[in-house]
Amino acid sequence: MTEPTATSYGFVRLDGVMADDLSVINSARVSFDRRDETLTDAGVGLIKFLMRERHGTPFEHNAFRFHIKCPIFVTREWMRHRIGSFNEFSARYSEMPPEFYLPELEHVRAQTGKPGAYTFEPAGDEAFRDNAVHAMSSSIKQSIRMYNMLLEGGIAKEVARNVLPVSMYTQFYWTVNARSLMNFLSLRTAPAALLEIRQYAEDVETIFADTMPVTYAAWVEYGKKTP
Amino acid sequence: MTEPTATSYGFVRLDGVMADDLSVINSARVSFDRRDETLTDAGVGLIKFLMRERHGTPFEHNAFRFHIKCPIFVTREWMRHRIGSFNEFSARYSEMPPEFYLPELEHVRAQTGKPGAYTFEPAGDEAFRDNAVHAMSSSIKQSIRMYNMLLEGGIAKEVARNVLPVSMYTQFYWTVNARSLMNFLSLRTAPAALLEIRQYAEDVETIFADTMPVTYAAWVEYGKKTP
Amino acid sequence: MTEPTATSYGFVRLDGVMADDLSVINSARVSFDRRDETLTDAGVGLIKFLMRERHGTPFEHNAFRFHIKCPIFVTREWMRHRIGSFNEFSARYSEMPPEFYLPELEHVRAQTGKPGAYTFEPAGDEAFRDNAVHAMSSSIKQSIRMYNMLLEGGIAKEVARNVLPVSMYTQFYWTVNARSLMNFLSLRTAPAALLEIRQYAEDVETIFADTMPVTYAAWVEYGKKTP
Amino acid sequence: MTEPTATSYGFVRLDGVMADDLSVINSARVSFDRRDETLTDAGVGLIKFLMRERHGTPFEHNAFRFHIKCPIFVTREWMRHRIGSFNEFSARYSEMPPEFYLPELEHVRAQTGKPGAYTFEPAGDEAFRDNAVHAMSSSIKQSIRMYNMLLEGGIAKEVARNVLPVSMYTQFYWTVNARSLMNFLSLRTAPAALLEIRQYAEDVETIFADTMPVTYAAWVEYGKKTP
Repeated sequence: MTEPTATSYGFVRLDGVMADDLSVINSARVSFDRRDETLTDAGVGLIKFLMRERHGTPFEHNAFRFHIKCPIFVTREWMRHRIGSFNEFSARYSEMPPEFYLPELEHVRAQTGKPGAYTFEPAGDEAFRDNAVHAMSSSIKQSIRMYNMLLEGGIAKEVARNVLPVSMYTQFYWTVNARSLMNFLSLRTAPAALLEIRQYAEDVETIFADTMPVTYAAWVEYGKKTP
Repeated sequence: MTEPTATSYGFVRLDGVMADDLSVINSARVSFDRRDETLTDAGVGLIKFLMRERHGTPFEHNAFRFHIKCPIFVTREWMRHRIGSFNEFSARYSEMPPEFYLPELEHVRAQTGKPGAYTFEPAGDEAFRDNAVHAMSSSIKQSIRMYNMLLEGGIAKEVARNVLPVSMYTQFYWTVNARSLMNFLSLRTAPAALLEIRQYAEDVETIFADTMPVTYAAWVEYGKKTP
Repeated sequence: MTEPTATSYGFVRLDGVMADDLSVINSARVSFDRRDETLTDAGVGLIKFLMRERHGTPFEHNAFRFHIKCPIFVTREWMRHRIGSFNEFSARYSEMPPEFYLPELEHVRAQTGKPGAYTFEPAGDEAFRDNAVHAMSSSIKQSIRMYNMLLEGGIAKEVARNVLPVSMYTQFYWTVNARSLMNFLSLRTAPAALLEIRQYAEDVETIFADTMPVTYAAWVEYGKKTP
Repeated sequence: MTEPTATSYGFVRLDGVMADDLSVINSARVSFDRRDETLTDAGVGLIKFLMRERHGTPFEHNAFRFHIKCPIFVTREWMRHRIGSFNEFSARYSEMPPEFYLPELEHVRAQTGKPGAYTFEPAGDEAFRDNAVHAMSSSIKQSIRMYNMLLEGGIAKEVARNVLPVSMYTQFYWTVNARSLMNFLSLRTAPAALLEIRQYAEDVETIFADTMPVTYAAWVEYGKKTP
């Protein structure tokens, strides 16, 4: 049995892409039976116009395929986004690797305020947080050991996994168009979003910005809303 | 702190409904500018025809709103169904009630065969299964105690919950039309489906059969496929 | 053969509904494992909060089923709304009734300005508009006569209909939840929307306002945006 | 004013693509934390298995962007497919080009049988069909002339177009994944589908077969159903 390991981040990897700014322009220009071969100033202006006026459909004619590794509790929020495609690791078919999320010390946080408008700050002092992280780690390792014991006893993977915590790492493919991606980013990079999904969303945002820079700039300019 | 409790089932409750067989007939008959006021033999025949020929859209003009309580690992499969609406209990906003799933003794199962075509049978003898259930229960209770300890230490709910297992009970509202419901049922009542979601799907199936009996009978007659 | 007839409006009829403000509140309150039996001030406040913060999913747990009669060119915009269900009259299966849209005199309009920001005013003087309406009517009636002649010659309905104009009336069922409905209304009641679909959208808006008055008021208060 | 022209077909053009058979395999293999770099026999077998068992999601991690020109009555069926993205020529913003569909002589057809199970054969003799095509052409050209006259009189494009028939050519971009594409093809290449959309669907099918040959072969082998 592999020793359980804790990390504070998985990965976001772009696995495939069909996306550029020109596709936004041309799918909008079809309204006028026109087509651009290159990115022009007029095209850039059109993207800004579409974003400002929230004409969303021209931002859909593209696709990003991501391969992501993150804790189960992060996927639980991610997979609520229905415009897009998912395939995930199966704990019915495969043994879960003994990897789990453990927050960085400064992310062991306390909350004040009301739901949806929490303020967070580090919980207690550093010694307290260090203790908390050790306690979490020890509890999760105990759960993983129990999982392994149940498997060794011949119990089905899909039953044994019930003792595993939501901090276990899983992985999935996610294919999504830029419009749905902007919706995801507007919700999951917001200050009120869960810190842990925000970290992944920021990596997704960087890839989006690199791939469709004009669209990205317009999205930022008009407040990072869903077009 | 409430004592952790284990149960083997939550609930499926119909919270609201706009669904009957006549709506299927009339949304199909609009093709001919016709409308029935009551269920006739011809209407029943039309439903069978639509199901057999997989004309799916007439089965969408209705809605079921369910309130469901089940373990997290069951919701993980449920919420992959994208045609429908979900709102779930939030472990960021609320403390998770200390309730968790523990299988009935006969459901502590071993698997043989290949992924997607497993055969299951009770694992070991009854004493073994009894031990396994006690071990699972003890591990999960330990995780819940850790959760409570972290909360008492002032750690945010959304951090503390990371130690909790996927067998914790959650609850959600699910609103769905009959076509998407039949897709859900065809996948989640199938023999290869996870036992635990099958139990919920069977309760959903009973409610569907009671509400749209002619549609249900046609769906069964033509092999419980997605129309 | 029935004589072709022109009208300037079809109908919007609510055929079935499962929708009230309380369903919004309770599908949001499930986050906290709470449930209201009646509409309270706190519930009203919650709806406002959800609308303002664009928490959209609680507005999805309901359904409106509409029966609509309108010209083909209006359905062409309507059916671009993908979150919802449609069944329409079939010109392959049935003869199209000889009814067509003809604008009211004041709606025979000229446009100035740029696409997406047109200004409209009545075209020419009343005599001009009267002439234009008669010319349109005469052209459309000629097309309908040709349709009938082709049918009488034994040509398939699906071929004969190719000569019919987009102003012919059709009808359809549309089932949609309040969130998607608000998206439809925000786009189709906007000043830049096509006048003819705006008229239908306004009738839909009235039914929505009557059915979910608190939700409607909040939607108006926060700018009629899609939540 | 350009002279109206009739043709019996527009075009299907692949404008962009992110699709191969390997993406199906790897999005399925993520269930097992595995990944193939090349197409192997085992991968081919997996695609067949997924198709046969109707595991649909691995077929979604790809995208095809098509540019299509076809008559309005064809788009009316096409745009009922909700899983995918559309942007179309706008008759509000642009003058419609005077191009319209006119069937080949052998496609001037008569129908017998019941809706959904029609049998078609050429209507009358060749002289009859020749007459019918000329009559249709003449009626449509009359409508186009009226359209132009209304435009010249200063009437808004969105009003003038109401006299135009559903046989006018329009164009649009369509972005879709392979699973939704197979659903489209299973319905629109079927013998009962409208002849005119079938012609476009067959061109789409050829492009699909060229791009994802293993997936295509499996789809054919298992009956061209939606996975």
